Amino acid sequence: MADGRVKVGMIGSQFQADIQVTSYHMGYEAEVVAVASPTPGNAAEFAKKLKIPRVFTDYREMLKERDIEVVSICAPNSLHAQMTKDIAAAGKHIICEKPLAMTIAEGEEMIDAAKRHGVLLMYGEELFFTPKYLKAKEMADAGAFGKVHLVKQSEKHFGPHSPWFWDINRSGGGALMDLGCHGIAFCYWFLGRPKLKSVYCQLGTYVHADKTKPDDESLCILEFENGVMGLVENSWARRGGMDDRIEVFGSEGLTYANLHMGNALPTFSERGYGYAVEKAPTTTGWMYPAFEELWNYGTPQELAHLARCARGKESLQSTGEDGLMLMRALYAGYASAGEGRKITLPYQPPSGVKRPIDLWLNGPAYPKKP
Amino acid sequence: MADGRVKVGMIGSQFQADIQVTSYHMGYEAEVVAVASPTPGNAAEFAKKLKIPRVFTDYREMLKERDIEVVSICAPNSLHAQMTKDIAAAGKHIICEKPLAMTIAEGEEMIDAAKRHGVLLMYGEELFFTPKYLKAKEMADAGAFGKVHLVKQSEKHFGPHSPWFWDINRSGGGALMDLGCHGIAFCYWFLGRPKLKSVYCQLGTYVHADKTKPDDESLCILEFENGVMGLVENSWARRGGMDDRIEVFGSEGLTYANLHMGNALPTFSERGYGYAVEKAPTTTGWMYPAFEELWNYGTPQELAHLARCARGKESLQSTGEDGLMLMRALYAGYASAGEGRKITLPYQPPSGVKRPIDLWLNGPAYPKKP
Amino acid sequence: MADGRVKVGMIGSQFQADIQVTSYHMGYEAEVVAVASPTPGNAAEFAKKLKIPRVFTDYREMLKERDIEVVSICAPNSLHAQMTKDIAAAGKHIICEKPLAMTIAEGEEMIDAAKRHGVLLMYGEELFFTPKYLKAKEMADAGAFGKVHLVKQSEKHFGPHSPWFWDINRSGGGALMDLGCHGIAFCYWFLGRPKLKSVYCQLGTYVHADKTKPDDESLCILEFENGVMGLVENSWARRGGMDDRIEVFGSEGLTYANLHMGNALPTFSERGYGYAVEKAPTTTGWMYPAFEELWNYGTPQELAHLARCARGKESLQSTGEDGLMLMRALYAGYASAGEGRKITLPYQPPSGVKRPIDLWLNGPAYPKKP
Amino acid sequence: MADGRVKVGMIGSQFQADIQVTSYHMGYEAEVVAVASPTPGNAAEFAKKLKIPRVFTDYREMLKERDIEVVSICAPNSLHAQMTKDIAAAGKHIICEKPLAMTIAEGEEMIDAAKRHGVLLMYGEELFFTPKYLKAKEMADAGAFGKVHLVKQSEKHFGPHSPWFWDINRSGGGALMDLGCHGIAFCYWFLGRPKLKSVYCQLGTYVHADKTKPDDESLCILEFENGVMGLVENSWARRGGMDDRIEVFGSEGLTYANLHMGNALPTFSERGYGYAVEKAPTTTGWMYPAFEELWNYGTPQELAHLARCARGKESLQSTGEDGLMLMRALYAGYASAGEGRKITLPYQPPSGVKRPIDLWLNGPAYPKKP
Repeated sequence: MADGRVKVGMIGSQFQADIQVTSYHMGYEAEVVAVASPTPGNAAEFAKKLKIPRVFTDYREMLKERDIEVVSICAPNSLHAQMTKDIAAAGKHIICEKPLAMTIAEGEEMIDAAKRHGVLLMYGEELFFTPKYLKAKEMADAGAFGKVHLVKQSEKHFGPHSPWFWDINRSGGGALMDLGCHGIAFCYWFLGRPKLKSVYCQLGTYVHADKTKPDDESLCILEFENGVMGLVENSWARRGGMDDRIEVFGSEGLTYANLHMGNALPTFSERGYGYAVEKAPTTTGWMYPAFEELWNYGTPQELAHLARCARGKESLQSTGEDGLMLMRALYAGYASAGEGRKITLPYQPPSGVKRPIDLWLNGPAYPKKP
Repeated sequence: MADGRVKVGMIGSQFQADIQVTSYHMGYEAEVVAVASPTPGNAAEFAKKLKIPRVFTDYREMLKERDIEVVSICAPNSLHAQMTKDIAAAGKHIICEKPLAMTIAEGEEMIDAAKRHGVLLMYGEELFFTPKYLKAKEMADAGAFGKVHLVKQSEKHFGPHSPWFWDINRSGGGALMDLGCHGIAFCYWFLGRPKLKSVYCQLGTYVHADKTKPDDESLCILEFENGVMGLVENSWARRGGMDDRIEVFGSEGLTYANLHMGNALPTFSERGYGYAVEKAPTTTGWMYPAFEELWNYGTPQELAHLARCARGKESLQSTGEDGLMLMRALYAGYASAGEGRKITLPYQPPSGVKRPIDLWLNGPAYPKKP
Repeated sequence: MADGRVKVGMIGSQFQADIQVTSYHMGYEAEVVAVASPTPGNAAEFAKKLKIPRVFTDYREMLKERDIEVVSICAPNSLHAQMTKDIAAAGKHIICEKPLAMTIAEGEEMIDAAKRHGVLLMYGEELFFTPKYLKAKEMADAGAFGKVHLVKQSEKHFGPHSPWFWDINRSGGGALMDLGCHGIAFCYWFLGRPKLKSVYCQLGTYVHADKTKPDDESLCILEFENGVMGLVENSWARRGGMDDRIEVFGSEGLTYANLHMGNALPTFSERGYGYAVEKAPTTTGWMYPAFEELWNYGTPQELAHLARCARGKESLQSTGEDGLMLMRALYAGYASAGEGRKITLPYQPPSGVKRPIDLWLNGPAYPKKP
Repeated sequence: MADGRVKVGMIGSQFQADIQVTSYHMGYEAEVVAVASPTPGNAAEFAKKLKIPRVFTDYREMLKERDIEVVSICAPNSLHAQMTKDIAAAGKHIICEKPLAMTIAEGEEMIDAAKRHGVLLMYGEELFFTPKYLKAKEMADAGAFGKVHLVKQSEKHFGPHSPWFWDINRSGGGALMDLGCHGIAFCYWFLGRPKLKSVYCQLGTYVHADKTKPDDESLCILEFENGVMGLVENSWARRGGMDDRIEVFGSEGLTYANLHMGNALPTFSERGYGYAVEKAPTTTGWMYPAFEELWNYGTPQELAHLARCARGKESLQSTGEDGLMLMRALYAGYASAGEGRKITLPYQPPSGVKRPIDLWLNGPAYPKKP
């Protein structure tokens, strides 16, 4: 098992699973050899489309495959903890999609399980591998901007693909939970993982109130120990396709990195052309098509890194601990929206709270949603 | 006096006075016939440069000039109230640069004085006249974006020109006071002046701590009565020249309007060329020079509007009441930064507070500056 | 007649006449008091829409109006010469839309007529007044780019509004004639009117072959006496709305000025919003709406300049001689496309040629259209 | 030798050799095991920097290494032909940097030699592998733009790194030869390799006349058999760093792809940060730093493709025949500039002409350089 490609089992057959399998197969370090998905037929169809040899409806059966070294979790947030514990017990490395879990306790159990079984628990944050953002960090680390005092990240689109996101029992929250975890992670990582001092969020549900309780718009202000500010903006209510961008400001300079409209080929077409960019509503008229989208997100690089870690060639750049830190930040964020005040960390949610969003929906001190 | 150009007297001879006089003279409705500035020589030099016939060191002397119909206040914030009352008493219309005053009470007195003397009190908010932003509003009002739920405005540069800004006794605050008043006004106006429900600000002093106590970086989240969010970002710590931009998001669309890098002519020069854009550090290397900068800001349009109002041809689009609303928002904003919680409006600052920034610097409940 | 606004008579009631009347009325120097258009009803409808008091079907009747000082020609190219001679004979100043005429001889007669009758003949080139391009010229003249060796201008859209453009008996040519006259004029003016040494054009008819013989795509290379190159690109076959841009390259620097996508507010709308920009196909989806389009083109500034010239306050910046120079360049350009070689100037077309495009369509030495 | 990585020998140790070795080592298919460079010390230094085990001063010695399967030629143009023949005779595959050779006859001999010895001759055109441009081609091939009628490509910077470029005995020409070969190849490839019907170039020497005879600025118009136009712009006289961009126009749409300013992170730095982008003059002030520059150019993809071709897994996408076609186009281009007329292909230069540029410098019919 120590030579050749790292063999991967995939849990999930929806949007993110597709991105991951495609990304694994763009590199040389790993290959996806099995897929598990509970809905009858889903795994088989997915496996056929992406040329995956083995198919399972129960991921626990897949875990019995001896040659599988890494298992990817691309399933609803509410299932992450149990799956992680099962995979760890089977002695396989794990990559868990963001956010890490539903509760802080779950996150702690996941880290503990991986530790006990001696396997890697990678937290699936591709922004740590996004080439354009790495260039920004490289410049910042080289002193280009002097002392950095403000880092911004924003991800916006018109809402997720898979229906479970709209069910807070399975997702735990809305745009802040789904996308804000990227932005908070980004600021934290960009600055070299300083302690997060406080979080403040303003949330609203503007466009999808018919089908969801959660926030579809989120503004989030971070304060780090060294005095640096973060500003994270997220939306499930932004028309016109996917948008991901960062800005960095320091005493001696600044940089803007726009992943979508920035990199795009501004294009007008009467007829359309198949595919423009993630979540684009159309390919006719003016549009901002992306090129080599996955590579520009960094998912192939992220998964190649995991494969090299599995072989002991590199050490994990995105860990369960990162994911746990984000769980704390997300709970603090929803609490701040509920209470209308900044929440200082470390923050311990009231006992019994099982979904971050509840701290907003049931916020004690402040009138809730607009 | 009812025909020919409206005659204007200018109080001030620094940066903003220069912008205003140049802007008045770009149109046909008004002409600046006098300037008053207390520092010996300043008014004379300014008058010579800008071809203004009459010069005063005491503005009260200027107010005796019979033919002057409008007086512009381009003086430190701490002088606005007294000047406005004096001008009103002299029976002349007033345009007062932003922010309106140091305290809410002063603002109320100014409005009252204008009312009593039957003169106009214009609040100098040029963003209500910025052509590019007017196009965004025109589209929003035509329903282009469906129901708007987020409006953003940002103004950033490396700090003001005139030294009084750095003295909080004369300015009352930092970047939030100086620039945030633009952004809050913009969101308010763009949305049709809905009631402002709450304000939350995060402030910091990062770059100019040597010469100033005030905030040089500000993030500000607004919540309006109809549920719409505003996000206002300001900086006195942004390198590379002036930056002013807006974003608008609604259920059916969005728009981006970038006043500086957007409109600019991306230009590289080994030799330089005199002037690029407000607060640009240089004209060599790559730079984003502006064209017809004042027209693109909207100051000539703003002052032509005032002249037409003075003749009864139009009704004021930017009033003392707008300025007063902003004073309340600024006090609430500094208080929110001091207390680490959103402040709901109407907000009454503790009695005795004479400078908005004190509510942050002396914030009771929360450790202050990073 | 020497005080008050300059009174203008308009010949034409189509697209360009609308732009001109609207532009005249944006300033204070002039007012359009009459319109003449031969098609019954057209002038009346136009006059009603734009609030013009007097209406004529025969422009010669309009020329009898004593108070009219300036007459604008917004009529098919084939009518320019006769109209100019009639207006000059009536003792009124003229602004003639581009291109100046159908033949070089006509252009010479027009200049001669104006001279004999002591009236001004302005050539309607608004690029000499386009604010963004003026900034580029200001920088160039300040030495920002060192010695300039390449100037580019490009105007592209999907074809003209008025049907006469498609009839070469009335237009004399296609995209090169209609739009290339702008670009050649721009390079010439930008460089300080150096002698034009040679022209080379490549033409094609790609999209509108069903309804037109003329070129709908043109590439044009200019060589000036001082060795500088010009590159002019034009199209009636560009989808997605109007596009106008320049680039300037010199030994010490360069600049890019993009009038449309550059200045625009990138906007997405599900519903649309009335108007985006000249020749935009729609206002839904992504689009690049313009703000204050006419001002950004420079037409109000151009016409205000004319009014000031009519009063002797300024001297003409765009003359009949400029237009005549362009006629020579256009003939040389079509000849170069016909012959497949650069044509050196001065160039005298073969006698009997009445339309520039004939030199391409009947080009002796080279297979013509693709 | 048929498994493991393809072993590569490099001829050259300057700028392009560095790009190639770095690019080879970004992939898994190939490794550079030897380098040859005649100047004493150069190869050793280069080998040390880039971790290449074997060093030669005479490339013919390197060709004796049994395990080397592919040899890269990154040497002056005048040496390409002899090297190619020697490598072919040694039974190794060849990648030859652009342009292919000095003369058409040389190019024919190179193709013939490769054929006789049964080795691959790859022509080093990375634009066929540039990811952003591949997206444009993918859209075009999907019909997004309808029938394409104009393809543009432009590469501009302030002149090459290696001194031999300035010596026409070793380079054969200037900006048209060095950069125009990219643009002509791009248009040809983008359109599916239609027959090239004619070429017309305008050349000038504006900035580097002190150290070079060749053209440092080139405009080139192509006409293909199917009536499509190409426009290729090149410069060794463009300040501010490297610039590479394309535009595509068709009956139903258009696209713009800007490889440098488009993809960049607009950045301002007081202090600088090591590296911005190829040929950038500085990293202070505003600049357009690139991220993952080589990947965005496509050189790693190009060389991985070659390695796969060497193993029979793919068939060559950029061949000696492509390079030969370009030699014909370059000769026609310089001839057109010398004669002031479009040159139709097939074109046979006068016998005895050994450098393309001579057809311009000695152009019979037209005054040469400005």
